[in-house]
Amino acid sequence: MAVLRPADAAEALNGLEAGLAARVLEAMPSPTAAQILDEPDLDEPAELIELLPVQAAAAILTGLQPDRRADIFRELSEPTRRALLPRLDAEIRQGLAELLSYPPRSAGGLMTTDFVSVPADWTVAQTLEHIHSVGRGKENVYTICLLDPKTKRLVKVVGLWRLVTGDPKATVSTAAWPYDPISVPPLTDQEEVARLLSKYKLLAVPVVTEHGHLLGIVTVDDVIHAIIEEGTEDVQKLGGSEALDEPYLKIDFLTLIRKRAGWLCILFLSEMLTASAMQFYQAELEKAIVLTLFIPLIMSSGGNSGSQATSLVIRSLALREIGLKDWWRIAARELPAGLVLGALLGVIGVVRIGVWQQLGLFDYGAYWPLVALTVGLALTAIVTFGSVAGSMLPFILKRLGFDPATASAPFVATLVDVTGLVIYFSVAYAVLRGTLL
Amino acid sequence: MAVLRPADAAEALNGLEAGLAARVLEAMPSPTAAQILDEPDLDEPAELIELLPVQAAAAILTGLQPDRRADIFRELSEPTRRALLPRLDAEIRQGLAELLSYPPRSAGGLMTTDFVSVPADWTVAQTLEHIHSVGRGKENVYTICLLDPKTKRLVKVVGLWRLVTGDPKATVSTAAWPYDPISVPPLTDQEEVARLLSKYKLLAVPVVTEHGHLLGIVTVDDVIHAIIEEGTEDVQKLGGSEALDEPYLKIDFLTLIRKRAGWLCILFLSEMLTASAMQFYQAELEKAIVLTLFIPLIMSSGGNSGSQATSLVIRSLALREIGLKDWWRIAARELPAGLVLGALLGVIGVVRIGVWQQLGLFDYGAYWPLVALTVGLALTAIVTFGSVAGSMLPFILKRLGFDPATASAPFVATLVDVTGLVIYFSVAYAVLRGTLL
Repeated sequence: MAVLRPADAAEALNGLEAGLAARVLEAMPSPTAAQILDEPDLDEPAELIELLPVQAAAAILTGLQPDRRADIFRELSEPTRRALLPRLDAEIRQGLAELLSYPPRSAGGLMTTDFVSVPADWTVAQTLEHIHSVGRGKENVYTICLLDPKTKRLVKVVGLWRLVTGDPKATVSTAAWPYDPISVPPLTDQEEVARLLSKYKLLAVPVVTEHGHLLGIVTVDDVIHAIIEEGTEDVQKLGGSEALDEPYLKIDFLTLIRKRAGWLCILFLSEMLTASAMQFYQAELEKAIVLTLFIPLIMSSGGNSGSQATSLVIRSLALREIGLKDWWRIAARELPAGLVLGALLGVIGVVRIGVWQQLGLFDYGAYWPLVALTVGLALTAIVTFGSVAGSMLPFILKRLGFDPATASAPFVATLVDVTGLVIYFSVAYAVLRGTLL
Repeated sequence: MAVLRPADAAEALNGLEAGLAARVLEAMPSPTAAQILDEPDLDEPAELIELLPVQAAAAILTGLQPDRRADIFRELSEPTRRALLPRLDAEIRQGLAELLSYPPRSAGGLMTTDFVSVPADWTVAQTLEHIHSVGRGKENVYTICLLDPKTKRLVKVVGLWRLVTGDPKATVSTAAWPYDPISVPPLTDQEEVARLLSKYKLLAVPVVTEHGHLLGIVTVDDVIHAIIEEGTEDVQKLGGSEALDEPYLKIDFLTLIRKRAGWLCILFLSEMLTASAMQFYQAELEKAIVLTLFIPLIMSSGGNSGSQATSLVIRSLALREIGLKDWWRIAARELPAGLVLGALLGVIGVVRIGVWQQLGLFDYGAYWPLVALTVGLALTAIVTFGSVAGSMLPFILKRLGFDPATASAPFVATLVDVTGLVIYFSVAYAVLRGTLL
């Protein structure tokens, strides 16, 4: 018996041209079509809804999980929304309006309003009976919210397994964990929700108002999607482009160019400062052309150490291993780390110049020991600067309200390149004044 | 009532010096200590076990989830293992040996052997009664494996919610989804397990032998940890260091240096080729010192486009949006993308030189239009090369059996730097021969 799973059906539809996929959905019974549209891996569900006759679209939307319905609704065009809304039940319309009022990447935007809650003074058997009779889907039934019978505030959360393995005659609240429930306000960022679910190994987190009233629950499958999505964004930003928001092979060529050209141009314009710096030092360059040989080497070393430091700090910030207040602890590690790494590269650089000179592979001129000293000292200074600047930049961005991942490796490298040139020529001037310069 | 959750207790222990933390654990009843050691967020659990008296350590290990027990055991020193093993039950010892036989990042290494399985011909009521009587923890009870009564092979998987909401008198296999169960062989990579759990919105995946016999289940909480861990590694590698494997502030200074120095030195040594390339073109440099002014600008642009392409491809490979066979589809997008982006930067570069020259901000010499042409053409070629090389490198690494994330942004930048110099001077030679060169 080969029955197609909804996730596989969604994947199959992804392979079809949109108009054809919409016709396939239309031909199905609407609950089956709704199951497929519930799959987060289905690309462009809103586009499919737009292509369906309004009656079929309304039937499918009605069958969706509330959180998914809101996600899709968010993407619909204004005319489609206006055509669809009157065809939905009043209750669904109201739920939709509520979910749409939260930002998409917040707990409120991720949550489903289709959950099980019972008064905390019910028995375990009564609760199980209730679940049996309402018969909801798995997303919503593994975490049962217990409400104060009077105030209706959330008082405890209990897992379905505790009910199944517990004493049927006991009060449901005694079957719950003794801890106060973990819950979040609706505006909590999805990264924070993911961190809580992961830390406390939960299958769902209740979302509550400031007065403790239950709004919905965020379930683990939505959070896994959110974690993977944030990871993709961080990697893409770290690589120096905007987040694509779509799979690489699905995104159209012009959008791909647009998402990359912005940062590339900004970096290019900033990097033009290196040309200005070089122009500024042109007199020195002409006198000591041997100095130009090491410019790419020295600049890239600063960029590399900076990109190491920035990626380590970005990830630690994302995982909340460190907070804004820890900036000085990071600086206190990166300064000595940069000095050690810089000195290491400096020594290798000096040895390289010495060996080449002694073996006669290249002639760095009469003052080659001073040139080697310049390169060694400049490497130490620039790698140290790279480590400190690369590690502090994410803090500065976060403090200013930007995503720290915007401190991409190329961004740091550019910053360090320009400063690196100034450091290099300053060191050269100090060491070589009176000889080469 | 403020009861400390195990995850919070683990966090509190993380803040203590290891000897003290071990004494705190020793003072607790061993089931409580085991609950805390079960927390994946507890740092260095093996170190704590090493510090405990062997009797206490054995009691705590016995109380752990089998998968966590194996994870910790893997980290113990040989003498401690030898002292502990005789103090564990024969059944636990055997399970441990089995779990330790799988690589830590495989389905076998992640799975727990503590799961619920029943013959497929039992009724729903019988199954619920069985779960009630064995009374296991939530990790293991939400996904019930149904075995063929004769062959003991896995035939179906059913979620606890289907039993609770289903007809008690029905056969348990009719309560299961009609689909064949999703299962994985024990050597499946954890990224693939995560992808399946996420795609099919599962709470656990059974791990089976090639003959279909059940070995264990991988639960969603372990997978979330695995996803976050892999994300951290990818970001750190992309930033050009080895994966730290520990939180930034926890790792000791020497290890931090060691994890970074390796790649930094390799990159430095590779980047030395730029010095060699510059030496090779020294004659041209001396004749046309104006060319040196744009070296940092041109090189960094190639590196930036390369790091964009490489991070986009690495992430798509990690998410299985693309496979090895798609390399030519990527190449077919990156070649035109690189040309467009390169031409864009080239035009900006030409305009910059023209404007500076015309406004008298800098004198690029009599042949300035040719210099501008050189810069524009070189930028186009280098950005194109960077995009193509950066996008193909992860494929090559994956094909050779390395982690594609090793194609870090600095690595790509270095590769493109050296090639970029050669391209720049070749273009310069072609354009400026007979005039400047």
